[in-house]
Amino acid sequence: MPLYMDIHRNMVGLTDEAVVAAHQKDLEVQHKYGVRYMSYWYDKELGKVFCLVDAPSKEAAAAVHREAHGNVADEIFEVKQGE
Amino acid sequence: MPLYMDIHRNMVGLTDEAVVAAHQKDLEVQHKYGVRYMSYWYDKELGKVFCLVDAPSKEAAAAVHREAHGNVADEIFEVKQGE
Repeated sequence: MPLYMDIHRNMVGLTDEAVVAAHQKDLEVQHKYGVRYMSYWYDKELGKVFCLVDAPSKEAAAAVHREAHGNVADEIFEVKQGE
Repeated sequence: MPLYMDIHRNMVGLTDEAVVAAHQKDLEVQHKYGVRYMSYWYDKELGKVFCLVDAPSKEAAAAVHREAHGNVADEIFEVKQGE
């Protein structure tokens, strides 16, 4: 399956609890779309979140975020992981 | 040590070989700055590279890229890794 990195920008007022809760919701929903959210990194101060996700398509990755919590990424890139 | 995610944009004409070679140069140089480039992901088509790096500061992370191959990131964020 393709691997994607998405970026959420301008997540104002981000807290650890909110990020963890949103990711948990992704994990609960993702099986419906054949998606696997693998890892994520976030910068609370600047309101950025990066998600690494294995998904059949960009649209499927986005559908999980949309259903889980509504925070769809601003950008998503199909990536290869470096060796 | 803080963890950072950097983003390189507009890496026109990116090839697998060039990315691997640049990362290898980072690995050779990083000990001088107390930095550890951990993982990276790239989108050849859109010319994006994301590097995850453990570094004492943003400046130290950038110094490694500058000395190793000159391709300094366009953005760098201090991140927490999600659980």
